[in-house]
Amino acid sequence: MTIDGAEVAERSLTEDVTTAATIGAAPNGGLARFAWTPELAEVTEWVAQELERLGLDTEIDAAGNLLGRWPAPQGKAVMAASHLDTVPSGGPLDGALGVLGAVEAVRILRREGFEPARPIWIGAFMDEEGARFGTALFGSRAFVGEDLTEALEVRDRQGVSVREAMIAQGHDPERLGEAAQVDALSAYLELHIEQGPVLHTKQLRLGIVTSITGILGYRVTLGGEANHAGTTPIDLRRDALVGAARVIVALREEARTDPQLRATVGDIRVVPGATNVIPGRCEFVVDLRPAVADTFERAPGWLEATIERIAAEEGLEATIRRDYAAPPVPMDPHVTDQIRAAAREEQVDALELFSGAGHDAMLVARQVPSGMIFVPSRGGISHSPEEWTDPADCELGARVLAGALRRLAS
Amino acid sequence: MTIDGAEVAERSLTEDVTTAATIGAAPNGGLARFAWTPELAEVTEWVAQELERLGLDTEIDAAGNLLGRWPAPQGKAVMAASHLDTVPSGGPLDGALGVLGAVEAVRILRREGFEPARPIWIGAFMDEEGARFGTALFGSRAFVGEDLTEALEVRDRQGVSVREAMIAQGHDPERLGEAAQVDALSAYLELHIEQGPVLHTKQLRLGIVTSITGILGYRVTLGGEANHAGTTPIDLRRDALVGAARVIVALREEARTDPQLRATVGDIRVVPGATNVIPGRCEFVVDLRPAVADTFERAPGWLEATIERIAAEEGLEATIRRDYAAPPVPMDPHVTDQIRAAAREEQVDALELFSGAGHDAMLVARQVPSGMIFVPSRGGISHSPEEWTDPADCELGARVLAGALRRLAS
Repeated sequence: MTIDGAEVAERSLTEDVTTAATIGAAPNGGLARFAWTPELAEVTEWVAQELERLGLDTEIDAAGNLLGRWPAPQGKAVMAASHLDTVPSGGPLDGALGVLGAVEAVRILRREGFEPARPIWIGAFMDEEGARFGTALFGSRAFVGEDLTEALEVRDRQGVSVREAMIAQGHDPERLGEAAQVDALSAYLELHIEQGPVLHTKQLRLGIVTSITGILGYRVTLGGEANHAGTTPIDLRRDALVGAARVIVALREEARTDPQLRATVGDIRVVPGATNVIPGRCEFVVDLRPAVADTFERAPGWLEATIERIAAEEGLEATIRRDYAAPPVPMDPHVTDQIRAAAREEQVDALELFSGAGHDAMLVARQVPSGMIFVPSRGGISHSPEEWTDPADCELGARVLAGALRRLAS
Repeated sequence: MTIDGAEVAERSLTEDVTTAATIGAAPNGGLARFAWTPELAEVTEWVAQELERLGLDTEIDAAGNLLGRWPAPQGKAVMAASHLDTVPSGGPLDGALGVLGAVEAVRILRREGFEPARPIWIGAFMDEEGARFGTALFGSRAFVGEDLTEALEVRDRQGVSVREAMIAQGHDPERLGEAAQVDALSAYLELHIEQGPVLHTKQLRLGIVTSITGILGYRVTLGGEANHAGTTPIDLRRDALVGAARVIVALREEARTDPQLRATVGDIRVVPGATNVIPGRCEFVVDLRPAVADTFERAPGWLEATIERIAAEEGLEATIRRDYAAPPVPMDPHVTDQIRAAAREEQVDALELFSGAGHDAMLVARQVPSGMIFVPSRGGISHSPEEWTDPADCELGARVLAGALRRLAS
């Protein structure tokens, strides 16, 4: 297999990002490339052709994942992947940068004449966002062998099921199990935009992810006593909103002192909700993001004790319901070392941070040593047409990805 | 004019309360006697007959107020009044106790053979609650000479205007101005249930009102930045709900240390209101009840400074809109002295407290030396069929009212 060096050189990551952003452009701005649609198939096919021009064998697997394989004589593969689907009015980089950056990494390694000692796989996972069916991480779940039988029956707003959408795109839902190829991997890498403000604020060009945050979701109800705002003295009140306000402040104080924890109350309502009536009931949601296992273990007890202490002090009855709990996923120290070394080669200061959002790496990392590379998001903005990263930083991310691939595949 | 002593003795306040509660009984429990309805007219007419049996001249004035006059050779009158209308599903005592207690006070004074040196007026004001038209304190506003021309055009849910309802009840809206009789008074007294928990909690049977609270109503908007709950570190957030929570806690702490102030946040909402999004905007209402002039003057500045300080600390933009402001109305020291002396005659411990709710006395007191007597509300409950006061406490209230009338009319 020979690769024409001139041909390899002729395209750049920035050009690829620009080209990909022309596929699935939404009429109201931004991108709309959803699971099992012609737009997503088109961009995936275009990336497959690029991989083939770079001498890789490509496959669209049973779950709709694109896999490009750079063969090697022996050993388990090192994979670099992300996704090509978007949220509604999505930006050009969320997901696509990780796929196109991996294509660029192959170009870099080809130009160097690199000969991998173990296979290199480049991937684009189906439906990371779940924008159409709510079946987020569909492709990576299939890849790691999760049973997706139930997901096949989920329907979009038009009443089309995942099963029907797959068949319409020429896929056989009965063969989904064949997509479970994670056992072929020795390591997994994912380049992604940060989707948060940390790197941008610190004016740093590169982040090395130490873990992907866990998530704990709660729905809390505080029950007090509705009463006349004028005639009820403060010390005879059981004001559910005052209790909730104290919990909100306590959560923020805890999260402020623990850099491994983020805490958010995103919605709240009071009953009866009248100007001159003391709130008799207050309902609110709590989103906790513990970045490390220790915090994940400790957070539920701390939250419950805090709510119960405040409720007791305020004479309220607390009901705490946990809606979901996903533990944090640590990145692999050895893989992370290779990213760190690749960053040093680029003479760039890299910040170690955790990912507050979920990624395909979250699933793969449970079974394969994994690492993630972040580049800055201007203003922390993502899931928006305003999403933007300096092209030089995107290219830096691709070079670090190439360096880590070289080290892991040598 | 002779009053038959046997006849005067034959009825009691408790019987009157029981009888009145049969007029306007709502099908779903409690009472429904609204402005300009046959039910309110019926109970008013029945009270008028009782006053006539006690030898008083009665009038239903142009505003629908019942006035019973015990004449005297000279001087301005001492009036005892309250109201007979109710909220929807109202209780038997809110308002009615003040009217029927005044009737009972006349009975007591008649039994004693009291000869007033100045006239005694007994009153039942039209539409204190405003349940039908939102035209609260209609009768007492007319009595103190307020121009009610605009109120005449207000319509109820069926589209009937106050003007039309008055005419249907045989009243001439053009003669409303004739109801302005406040100048005939030298003093005003009102017996009322507390509608709050203070007396009940302290196991006291009588309260002497020092002032009727002022009210300050605000609508506050805090503007921050909506952002991803997972990827945005705590110290880079502008969380509008955290700011609001701090304001709510600060308000409560201020009100807890100042017995002359009550503060309530009765309603709150956040935008966008999603589990995993930091609230970008939070709107809430603030109800402040300053009991005395000094607190009323100080509270707005304190509130605004507190909100602006917290907003600045949290990086939020605050918009503070004042919706209403009514100053506190102090009761008259001389009138209050007479109530105090009457309470001592009954050998009862009376608590001096302020009224957190509005009353007809609020309007009259601005022009005539006034005083109010409270009896306990079980559990602080009012505006509910559960509203209840020990009949012995109601009778005590009527005796103290009689004592104060005797002193003021001697």
